[in-house]
Amino acid sequence: MLRAGPSQEEIRRHNLGTLLRHVHLGGPTSRAELTNRMGLNRSTIMALTADLTAAGLVREELPRDTGRAGRPSLVVRPESARVYVLAFDVGVDRVVAARIGLGGVILDRRETVRPRGRFDMAEVVGILAGFAAQMQRKVHSDTVCVGAAAAVCGAVRKSDGVVRFGPNIGLRDAPFGEALSAELALGLPVAVGNDANLGALAEHTRGLGVGCRDLIYLHGDVGIGGGIIVNNQLLGGAAGYGGEVGHTVVNPGGQPCGCGARGCLEAEVGERALLEHAGRFAAERGRDGIRLVVEAADKGDIIAQDALHRVGDWLGYGVANLVNIFNPEVVIFGGTLREIYLGSAAQVRSRLNTCALSASREALRLRTSALGDDATIVGAAELAFTQVLADPLEVLAARLSG
Amino acid sequence: MLRAGPSQEEIRRHNLGTLLRHVHLGGPTSRAELTNRMGLNRSTIMALTADLTAAGLVREELPRDTGRAGRPSLVVRPESARVYVLAFDVGVDRVVAARIGLGGVILDRRETVRPRGRFDMAEVVGILAGFAAQMQRKVHSDTVCVGAAAAVCGAVRKSDGVVRFGPNIGLRDAPFGEALSAELALGLPVAVGNDANLGALAEHTRGLGVGCRDLIYLHGDVGIGGGIIVNNQLLGGAAGYGGEVGHTVVNPGGQPCGCGARGCLEAEVGERALLEHAGRFAAERGRDGIRLVVEAADKGDIIAQDALHRVGDWLGYGVANLVNIFNPEVVIFGGTLREIYLGSAAQVRSRLNTCALSASREALRLRTSALGDDATIVGAAELAFTQVLADPLEVLAARLSG
Repeated sequence: MLRAGPSQEEIRRHNLGTLLRHVHLGGPTSRAELTNRMGLNRSTIMALTADLTAAGLVREELPRDTGRAGRPSLVVRPESARVYVLAFDVGVDRVVAARIGLGGVILDRRETVRPRGRFDMAEVVGILAGFAAQMQRKVHSDTVCVGAAAAVCGAVRKSDGVVRFGPNIGLRDAPFGEALSAELALGLPVAVGNDANLGALAEHTRGLGVGCRDLIYLHGDVGIGGGIIVNNQLLGGAAGYGGEVGHTVVNPGGQPCGCGARGCLEAEVGERALLEHAGRFAAERGRDGIRLVVEAADKGDIIAQDALHRVGDWLGYGVANLVNIFNPEVVIFGGTLREIYLGSAAQVRSRLNTCALSASREALRLRTSALGDDATIVGAAELAFTQVLADPLEVLAARLSG
Repeated sequence: MLRAGPSQEEIRRHNLGTLLRHVHLGGPTSRAELTNRMGLNRSTIMALTADLTAAGLVREELPRDTGRAGRPSLVVRPESARVYVLAFDVGVDRVVAARIGLGGVILDRRETVRPRGRFDMAEVVGILAGFAAQMQRKVHSDTVCVGAAAAVCGAVRKSDGVVRFGPNIGLRDAPFGEALSAELALGLPVAVGNDANLGALAEHTRGLGVGCRDLIYLHGDVGIGGGIIVNNQLLGGAAGYGGEVGHTVVNPGGQPCGCGARGCLEAEVGERALLEHAGRFAAERGRDGIRLVVEAADKGDIIAQDALHRVGDWLGYGVANLVNIFNPEVVIFGGTLREIYLGSAAQVRSRLNTCALSASREALRLRTSALGDDATIVGAAELAFTQVLADPLEVLAARLSG
């Protein structure tokens, strides 16, 4: 708030990053459109584009037939095949690695199912690094990896990426990013983020939240995570643990939660609660178990319907509280909460109508994730692209010389 | 996020505003210190200071004895007696008007008690405008009023300052700012903000939250309001209704609330709940009624102690939920919540320890307001100063020619 104005060099750097971000998020964009959107003159846009082209971050080409007379404006495209990041996602039941190109293109991807109940960080890091090595062997020699990041279902310290608390994957005070970076041996740090936070980032940049200043993303896995965008920025809090809405208490004295408290949103709405209410806890698990309950309810199974209604009611309390606190434009349900929300939307809306202030909910939209199961890994990729978008030429030069 | 870099003129304007904000918030500041803090060179600081001095917004003078040898750096002071705003606070039991000078100095102040239970907007607007006129009559002819703003205990629409919902003062969809502006007849718009939001702003700029990026201010009057600073910015939400933590449900099926729901934080912790638990609801009211309960508890009155413990426990649930969501550096209790928190700190902390994640609370501080009953009106003044701090010379010129 109290900073002075930027220098000329900072402005140029900012403009280079802004232009690159435009084509990264918006795809191929004409120079005329960039001139228009960035509010700069044509010669500045041309100079910025020339710098990014020379660095191999974008290329210019004639657009496909525009259907209009006159000389068409050149189109600036991200060099998606050449410039990429490594993105990782560590969930309870699966781990995923992907190579994602500038512009958000998933170029390659590896995934494996993991057994529950035990979590050996070294083992998971080994699997992910192995996936990365497999993918790296297939790339051309003129490509460049400009960043790496991982989504983890736990509370992550902002300053160093240590996973402070991830009970569903058995992590506590684990230097996950450092370990993965060492195993990758690419001379790259691995940024680490909470999976729901990164899901929110993905929906905000490439999903249903594009253009929204204020949104809430709720992610269901075994537990419930939250990612919140306030005024176009991800809510991190003082140390990075913000957004732990799964551990807000909606039902004092209710179901015991893995965090030690009772009646947390996660305990009342998470996988275990739904499967227990449906009488299926011993038999089924994971995303498939939840889908079976929702399908059974669709087909008229009264026990399954009742189970969904019960968790939907608590989900409604949680959402209503968040709506009163944040007055968001949209609440997005991702992961297993997509199915749970679809099966209990009436309960959620009913509770919202009784508990959220009418002013706070009058323009609210409730939606299911546009990115589906990819939300978290796409968000990890966006985190990995942060640095190159902040200072494109410096970061690229450092990576090429490294 | 996608804006291009600023022009030279925008930078100058930004720097003028930044320098003025430094002396507005920090008080008399030496040129050397400004050079240092703003990261600009001495000649630029001198030019900016000269412009602000010529406009009569600041003045330069020799510092008092510095105790050091050599020529001392000139000190830049805000022209507090010359440049001021009008600030208003509409609470349930009282209305306040103040004339507050640049630098946050309360130059003059008027206050009156109001009867509860009825609220005639025209009457309140008349009282406030009358106070303003009394204060304006006493000012010198070379002074200039650069803004006006009001704090109101209700949900306020950001775009036009309409009070959408203020049950405790009987307002609904009330164009309060417009009405007060018309009655003042100073050619000035009156910005309107939620009182707890403005209390948060005051604590962040002049109170316990100075230097904190993330803080929560909880304000007790008849109801409970919240103001939340996320990453140095006041959380407003899509339309301005953000921060309504008083209407988050902490006790499903609990006490009925004025909003129509049950078990809201306001219903479990507000004035009525405390006085009813203490068996004093018929006899006492307002801040004095709450203080009597806290005093009785201090002296060993078991019923008063029990009442405080009960509301403290619910307050603890509310605070724990906010800590999990926001991971703030500090939670500040203001208004009547100061007394309530002081009388129930053990319950609040105990609930926080069981319900907030340890990572999220490990660096947390709980505090009572530094600004006391003035937090909301000081916040209103900060809101009123917003424009002149964003563009000092333009706003001043417009006010002097108007």
